[in-house]
Amino acid sequence: MKFEFVNPTRVVFGIGSLARLGAETARIGHRALLVTGGGSVKRSGVFRRAIESLEKAGVAWTECAGVEPNPRLTTVVRGASQAREHGSEVVVALGGGSVMDASKVMAAAVHYEGDPWDMMFHGERRARPPRRALPVVTVPTLAATGSEMNDGAVITNEKTVEKSFVIADCLYPRAAILDPALTASVPPDQTAYGIADLVTHVTESYFNGVDGTPLQDRWTEGVVEIAMEYGPRAVRDGGDLEARTQILWASTVALNGWIGAACGAPYPVHMIEHVLSAHTDVAHGAGLAIVSPAWMRFAARTRPERFAQFARRVPGLRPESADDAAAAAEGIDGLEAFFRSLGCPTRLSQAGIRADGIARFAADAVRVGGAEGRVGGRPPAGAADVEAILRACA
Amino acid sequence: MKFEFVNPTRVVFGIGSLARLGAETARIGHRALLVTGGGSVKRSGVFRRAIESLEKAGVAWTECAGVEPNPRLTTVVRGASQAREHGSEVVVALGGGSVMDASKVMAAAVHYEGDPWDMMFHGERRARPPRRALPVVTVPTLAATGSEMNDGAVITNEKTVEKSFVIADCLYPRAAILDPALTASVPPDQTAYGIADLVTHVTESYFNGVDGTPLQDRWTEGVVEIAMEYGPRAVRDGGDLEARTQILWASTVALNGWIGAACGAPYPVHMIEHVLSAHTDVAHGAGLAIVSPAWMRFAARTRPERFAQFARRVPGLRPESADDAAAAAEGIDGLEAFFRSLGCPTRLSQAGIRADGIARFAADAVRVGGAEGRVGGRPPAGAADVEAILRACA
Repeated sequence: MKFEFVNPTRVVFGIGSLARLGAETARIGHRALLVTGGGSVKRSGVFRRAIESLEKAGVAWTECAGVEPNPRLTTVVRGASQAREHGSEVVVALGGGSVMDASKVMAAAVHYEGDPWDMMFHGERRARPPRRALPVVTVPTLAATGSEMNDGAVITNEKTVEKSFVIADCLYPRAAILDPALTASVPPDQTAYGIADLVTHVTESYFNGVDGTPLQDRWTEGVVEIAMEYGPRAVRDGGDLEARTQILWASTVALNGWIGAACGAPYPVHMIEHVLSAHTDVAHGAGLAIVSPAWMRFAARTRPERFAQFARRVPGLRPESADDAAAAAEGIDGLEAFFRSLGCPTRLSQAGIRADGIARFAADAVRVGGAEGRVGGRPPAGAADVEAILRACA
Repeated sequence: MKFEFVNPTRVVFGIGSLARLGAETARIGHRALLVTGGGSVKRSGVFRRAIESLEKAGVAWTECAGVEPNPRLTTVVRGASQAREHGSEVVVALGGGSVMDASKVMAAAVHYEGDPWDMMFHGERRARPPRRALPVVTVPTLAATGSEMNDGAVITNEKTVEKSFVIADCLYPRAAILDPALTASVPPDQTAYGIADLVTHVTESYFNGVDGTPLQDRWTEGVVEIAMEYGPRAVRDGGDLEARTQILWASTVALNGWIGAACGAPYPVHMIEHVLSAHTDVAHGAGLAIVSPAWMRFAARTRPERFAQFARRVPGLRPESADDAAAAAEGIDGLEAFFRSLGCPTRLSQAGIRADGIARFAADAVRVGGAEGRVGGRPPAGAADVEAILRACA
């Protein structure tokens, strides 16, 4: 293990912590760009409670509404422009992963010289990451992306139909208000996709990271176990606040570096999925539930012992086979069955994605999400591999 | 779960990372108080490599040597005074837990008005924690206390024969240089005590924390498993760098808040042990190896199911009994046997501590480490309980 790690985000966790938003924001600044999505926070009353908390703490705000799923570069540019006009000192992200990701890139775009798309990693073209950003306070209303406590964001360039990511120290939120009660109104399908997302975050590290990270292995297995224990409860009964609590915390730690930093893994399933949600309106987590098992079957051929270990250690999977390759296959089947049991699609066709786009998706995956004609991972996947993976889950 | 968490320490982990000390320190300041212990870093050559790295980065330094095990208040006062005279902008802690703890309190004492002992928690008397401190860079040469990446420190007041702790945000080290190779020269006994220390950090949270922290449970079990797998290797062969790597990382994450913050646990075994190492020269980790199983037997009477869960989930313990109380007892016996197998004492007499001091130790434990006549925990322990715990491990 050889790595660097830092994560300065302050976490305020617990049911009712939304009431702390104003005070935590006022510690940072008194003029906020308040970023929201499609309106669910207004229907649920969360928006009203958020602005009451901000106003009580003396924070003036202007709303940047309408961040779409798979947030677009033009939306980022619009938000940054609004923050500049308003003289915002802080950005408050009130919503799901799309809102949080857009908020972070808006915060960086305020100070960025040139096209914000240049911040993003996109394969062969070299990214120019941001060095400064307005401070961000995240208030997730969905447990999924982990964006609330990390330094990454994913944005879609609707002109080039490319979805790519940026990672930079300045994007760590200053504070994260994690109130599990805010996720209680998330419908079953979105809840399920969030669970597929958090599970995939840790399995990407587990299966693509460096050797010799036994503690991270155990922690990953723990996250997957929690997802398998509490995920079905959260899908079945959105108001099960104990389940919502455990799932929100699991989604946060799944991608805040506590597990992943030491693993140094590329994220091939994400790189492949990003193409799907750039070209179609599939939800990111749903796309991961489709691609993840198919990618695992591809990778398990090279390292069956690693996949067998995972299957044998996660209580909800427990394969019967003594043979590694067979145990690996049972474990992957079990994880796929788990995604299906939550209501996730596990085939492209179930998400309305037609097989005739697969060759294009594979070409885009290695071009936008890879380097030297391959998507990183163990093993790396060339365009033909990605095409085979996608055909296997068509 | 309801908690707040922040940990801004930047970690540079890996064999060879000592060479990064100068550059990481120079990012913070160019005049360093370099704090060391009894001279082992000079014998091992680590000191020479550290100052070469500092000087290469243009950092001027003055050494504050001679921090003793169970570091004393007078040493803290001496270091703070030296830092003021030198105009130190940063404190570099090069040593074990004592050096790191003393360094942190020196860094705070530089700005503190009044007696630094007032910073410390001591039972009925109310502490006045520091709000400012010089930035600290930790370079642990021993895997044990986790002080390298947390906001706590333990100091002994030699006049009152009291050992107490301080916790404050300003004490988080700015950076931690975690080089497992520096721990290769630690002798077997100190290596073993460090392992007892890191194990006790996570078990204190596990057995005294709030209910409903299943992810933290799994992560704790993972830390104990890693300790049981790699600890014996590190004790047997100090030069086993893979074992040193895993143990150093386990000791860091055992007390950096990643597991403990959400648990909000008091640390009764530590409060009891602090009395032993205030009154005798027992090593802190050795004292924990003695007190921990005895405290567990006391607490398991109230919550056998919790101790049975722990025993059943940690692969190295695996009790045979179906009955919770019996499984709990088997697990505690197993953990005690593990400490013994490493070479730790598990009886006061083996550490040369006489039984005739027990009544005084118990009285001091509830006075210095407790409140309202009891040491916190599940269940809380009055002086009579603490006395019984200590007699059980006499």
